[in-house]
Amino acid sequence: MIEPMSILIKNATIITQNKNRDVFNGSLFIDDQFINEISKNTISVEADVEIDASGQIVIPGLINTHTHLPMTLLRGYGDDMGLSEWLQTRIWPVESKLSSSSVKVGAQLGLLEMMKSGTTTFFDMYFFEDEIAQVVKKMGFRAVLGFAFIDHGTPQYPAEKLFPHAKRFIKQWNKDDRIIPGLAPHGTYTCGPDTLQKVRNLADQYHVLIQIHCAETRDEVYDVKQQYGKRPIAQLKEFGLLDSDVVLAHCGWITKNEINEMKKTDVNVSHCPVSNMKIATGGFAPIPEMINAHVCVSLGTDGAASNNTLDMFETMKFTALLHKQHRWDSKVLPAQTVFDFATLGGAQALGLQNKIGSLEEGKLADVVIVDFNIPRLTPCHDPISHLVYAASGSDVRTTIVHGNPLVLDNKVQIIDEQQVLTNAQEEAKVLTNS
Amino acid sequence: MIEPMSILIKNATIITQNKNRDVFNGSLFIDDQFINEISKNTISVEADVEIDASGQIVIPGLINTHTHLPMTLLRGYGDDMGLSEWLQTRIWPVESKLSSSSVKVGAQLGLLEMMKSGTTTFFDMYFFEDEIAQVVKKMGFRAVLGFAFIDHGTPQYPAEKLFPHAKRFIKQWNKDDRIIPGLAPHGTYTCGPDTLQKVRNLADQYHVLIQIHCAETRDEVYDVKQQYGKRPIAQLKEFGLLDSDVVLAHCGWITKNEINEMKKTDVNVSHCPVSNMKIATGGFAPIPEMINAHVCVSLGTDGAASNNTLDMFETMKFTALLHKQHRWDSKVLPAQTVFDFATLGGAQALGLQNKIGSLEEGKLADVVIVDFNIPRLTPCHDPISHLVYAASGSDVRTTIVHGNPLVLDNKVQIIDEQQVLTNAQEEAKVLTNS
Repeated sequence: MIEPMSILIKNATIITQNKNRDVFNGSLFIDDQFINEISKNTISVEADVEIDASGQIVIPGLINTHTHLPMTLLRGYGDDMGLSEWLQTRIWPVESKLSSSSVKVGAQLGLLEMMKSGTTTFFDMYFFEDEIAQVVKKMGFRAVLGFAFIDHGTPQYPAEKLFPHAKRFIKQWNKDDRIIPGLAPHGTYTCGPDTLQKVRNLADQYHVLIQIHCAETRDEVYDVKQQYGKRPIAQLKEFGLLDSDVVLAHCGWITKNEINEMKKTDVNVSHCPVSNMKIATGGFAPIPEMINAHVCVSLGTDGAASNNTLDMFETMKFTALLHKQHRWDSKVLPAQTVFDFATLGGAQALGLQNKIGSLEEGKLADVVIVDFNIPRLTPCHDPISHLVYAASGSDVRTTIVHGNPLVLDNKVQIIDEQQVLTNAQEEAKVLTNS
Repeated sequence: MIEPMSILIKNATIITQNKNRDVFNGSLFIDDQFINEISKNTISVEADVEIDASGQIVIPGLINTHTHLPMTLLRGYGDDMGLSEWLQTRIWPVESKLSSSSVKVGAQLGLLEMMKSGTTTFFDMYFFEDEIAQVVKKMGFRAVLGFAFIDHGTPQYPAEKLFPHAKRFIKQWNKDDRIIPGLAPHGTYTCGPDTLQKVRNLADQYHVLIQIHCAETRDEVYDVKQQYGKRPIAQLKEFGLLDSDVVLAHCGWITKNEINEMKKTDVNVSHCPVSNMKIATGGFAPIPEMINAHVCVSLGTDGAASNNTLDMFETMKFTALLHKQHRWDSKVLPAQTVFDFATLGGAQALGLQNKIGSLEEGKLADVVIVDFNIPRLTPCHDPISHLVYAASGSDVRTTIVHGNPLVLDNKVQIIDEQQVLTNAQEEAKVLTNS
């Protein structure tokens, strides 16, 4: 149950991620959905919940800007395969069998994994976003939910019904305090000019965010070039999909010229290194050049089917290390930069920079507590280093979203965890006939 | 305290890693230090300890073939720096201050981290191996401990005292049941012909293993070439250090011709992708070609100072993904192959293939239990996939070494964990003046 409450976190090391990146020992007081006070001193207040965070680190909730939530049911179902074989023999056959109930269980499982590993907000792209929204609402999470478009229709709707349902979906959720409806045209190779233009118009009409796969694989870039005579970034630009309300997932095969185009428009990037490496896309998103051009970079796990986790701590480590190795330069993407991607970058990509992404008075209370009093995080010379290079999502102990403690000292408060795990295992068996 | 006991693990999913890679539900009975019985049926026996492993996965303990154990104290002390700046301003100044007591605390911390993340055996290279051996012995771990050689002396001994002390160290531990003394000439650029030859002679005299850094960086290869007119592999070959009793750490800058030389001699490789990527060595160890040539590949974390964990699950995921991305081929290094590296490969590299590396009757009882009844490991389509692509070391619940439960249901049995964490934090402060 989600009810307004107050929470006092004391004796904590607080990683604020404010403008000065202040880190200090102190207390944090949450009243209803807001961070009411942060102080280096004791805060004398009676709270409904009191958390002694000695030996623990308090951080802003992590923000995962590219997911396909119900695909959590397909974690580990078809690894080590070529992309097209994997899609054709594993993913698409299962997706054709998706039902409201399987989507619901997959969403519950994905949310459980995220809340237990320190994520508090995500930007999803999938079918059945109605069902996903219901689950997100009930489980107290924050999300932008991208209603998916594919020219030839989705497993849920035939092509001609997509826009009417998208409009209905937006209207239904547009006033919610935690769920933000969005639009998710699948990609430039699966959505033609007509769809892209209509998505732009609908987004303008209702002021909602857009997410789209962009230049994930080299094949995709060549396909788009062959079909439309231009690369994906140019194609997106033509239909107004390079803009500050758009998140481009992957961007693995992006040129320096394209980065210049991206900068001019303040479009946002969701970098997904784990999925890119596992699927072996070959592309290395030119993140250092994006930073230099002041393009907003955020991080995504992609779906658990191609990752195989939703662990943003793991994604932070892969991000830093992939680019160091690629550039032969250990100074590339230092820990603070990567931690910024997962917090401030995510917030900005979702247009929520005034509401989440840092621990500051007046912001929404999306707060995560990581247990640093364990061998793998001892000693602590620098907490930011540990968050990026040593912590696992499994080291998270407490997760608060919108002022509600969803996980307290590793115990899920919001749903019967064991029941979800059992349901997920059963539903996965049905979907895969295994 | 370490006393002979019996342990019955029941209701488990057992990943045997035997020749057929059998995976089945059943029971495993440990009597004293050996695996006495593995069965698909109930084993009717009274045991000192009974573990109900429902929802859990039982695997052979992981084997980490390249560590610098006391450097766990330097986890996160100097990230995102160039290699020589890092060594000169961070690592070497601290190492010059090392004492018996700091080494002891660092070793305790490293062992705690390893036992809590599923490792049961490691091959170390460091100074003060006497102190390390005492700690390993007391904490019930299994290790090959490589006494380090550097031509200009180590922080512990001047050059002329290294060989006498190495000999003494070998004699002292040569008959131990869990500690195996070894020799660790640091590298071909830090150990000249005389040292390499003497190490070979000493190893032959006492039949002990050798570990050496090899072709970690491109600079190192050029240095050796300039100094000796040949690349590191040829230099090692000349002094008999390409042989089945040698583990080469890193091998990031190895040519195909060198792989042929390696195969001829059955030398073993310790692949350390996380450290290589973090230090940005640029090299990609040609692991697929090594497999084709039947070179024995094992995995190492390297020291926590350059990783920054000792988590072998993380190293498995990095191994698989790094090479998939590098080759643009998601079929490269499938999960089973990488899990083999961390178990059977490690055992073979240490010459212990008849004793550890798989769960088979008569082998030593190095057994790890991973909790699969958690969101990030649900559903389970394939346990091997989860072990490599989804599990974190933090998901390990129970670790048994040589028949002794060092960690039971996440509780350390062998030492006061909190005391070690406190001591490590204090010792790290002293060493780094922070």
